[in-house]
Amino acid sequence: MPPKRGYQLSKDDYLRRLRRIEGQVRGLQQMIEDDRYCIDVLTQISSVSAALQGVSVGLLDEHLRHCVVEAAAGGEADTEQKLIEASEAVSRLLRS
Amino acid sequence: MPPKRGYQLSKDDYLRRLRRIEGQVRGLQQMIEDDRYCIDVLTQISSVSAALQGVSVGLLDEHLRHCVVEAAAGGEADTEQKLIEASEAVSRLLRS
Amino acid sequence: MPPKRGYQLSKDDYLRRLRRIEGQVRGLQQMIEDDRYCIDVLTQISSVSAALQGVSVGLLDEHLRHCVVEAAAGGEADTEQKLIEASEAVSRLLRS
Amino acid sequence: MPPKRGYQLSKDDYLRRLRRIEGQVRGLQQMIEDDRYCIDVLTQISSVSAALQGVSVGLLDEHLRHCVVEAAAGGEADTEQKLIEASEAVSRLLRS
Repeated sequence: MPPKRGYQLSKDDYLRRLRRIEGQVRGLQQMIEDDRYCIDVLTQISSVSAALQGVSVGLLDEHLRHCVVEAAAGGEADTEQKLIEASEAVSRLLRS
Repeated sequence: MPPKRGYQLSKDDYLRRLRRIEGQVRGLQQMIEDDRYCIDVLTQISSVSAALQGVSVGLLDEHLRHCVVEAAAGGEADTEQKLIEASEAVSRLLRS
Repeated sequence: MPPKRGYQLSKDDYLRRLRRIEGQVRGLQQMIEDDRYCIDVLTQISSVSAALQGVSVGLLDEHLRHCVVEAAAGGEADTEQKLIEASEAVSRLLRS
Repeated sequence: MPPKRGYQLSKDDYLRRLRRIEGQVRGLQQMIEDDRYCIDVLTQISSVSAALQGVSVGLLDEHLRHCVVEAAAGGEADTEQKLIEASEAVSRLLRS
């Protein structure tokens, strides 16, 4: 098996990261229940947001690899559609 | 009871939002399990990130209200500390 | 000439947008000189940041189109390199 | 004169930073004129965005200090208004 390069994540990587994020979100609920200091909760939220961004970049990388494979196979119309979707997705991520 | 103004959230509001976010993160795992289209997963992640930001802004508002109450009560040193923490928290949120 | 689609910007579009952004940044300096209300300056900064993001998404789209053209032409090694660069660029944009 | 603490910037600090940002935006125009590699332009844009965020956090800190001074002086209605404006400004920054 070749080593993973760049931002490529496997299905298992995504699931592992998302389960960790789910646990962090449950941790946030506990922090609120326990009336923890706002700033500590905010720090934890920043960490969840960064983890979600890691997943996003992995998914975008995956999408782009599909584009490129399709382009190499000569599927021009689909490639154009996928490129537009990629730019729209980046736009949404930057705004969220 | 006076109406809620601006970004003020109650403990129940936070918990309700965080439970909803937890459900969305579980939904993301299901999307990955089902091999859903990358772009659809990315759209859902943008929505989770936006929901987390809503919680952040509420918490920051709460923190600032504590600063202000403290300042009105004459607690200058604590207020300075809280203001620095607020700016650091905003900095971290903008970078995450 | 075919119509522009999606996020494709021409060299002139980029230059026009960047000159407008330059003007906005000079406007920010004037606002500071004139001791304008912090919140009004912040609103203007949000607008400059959004304009810069528009330029970024255009550039990323352009980069991806180069990847795809290269992939279609069979340049596999270069494509891999460009895909990694694209993901790294998105990562940096999300963190800035 | 006491040392500057936390995120407090003087009028001169703001102007110096904004002039530097203006220079960076002119540099971006030159990069486009010179057909520089997209990814290099994107890296430079990330740096401009981060610099703008530094200015934003300074302005927000300043705004919050005004709130707190006002609160300490007993101006409750104005303080409420300023707190709402602060949360709205953070919301806009997070979305831009």
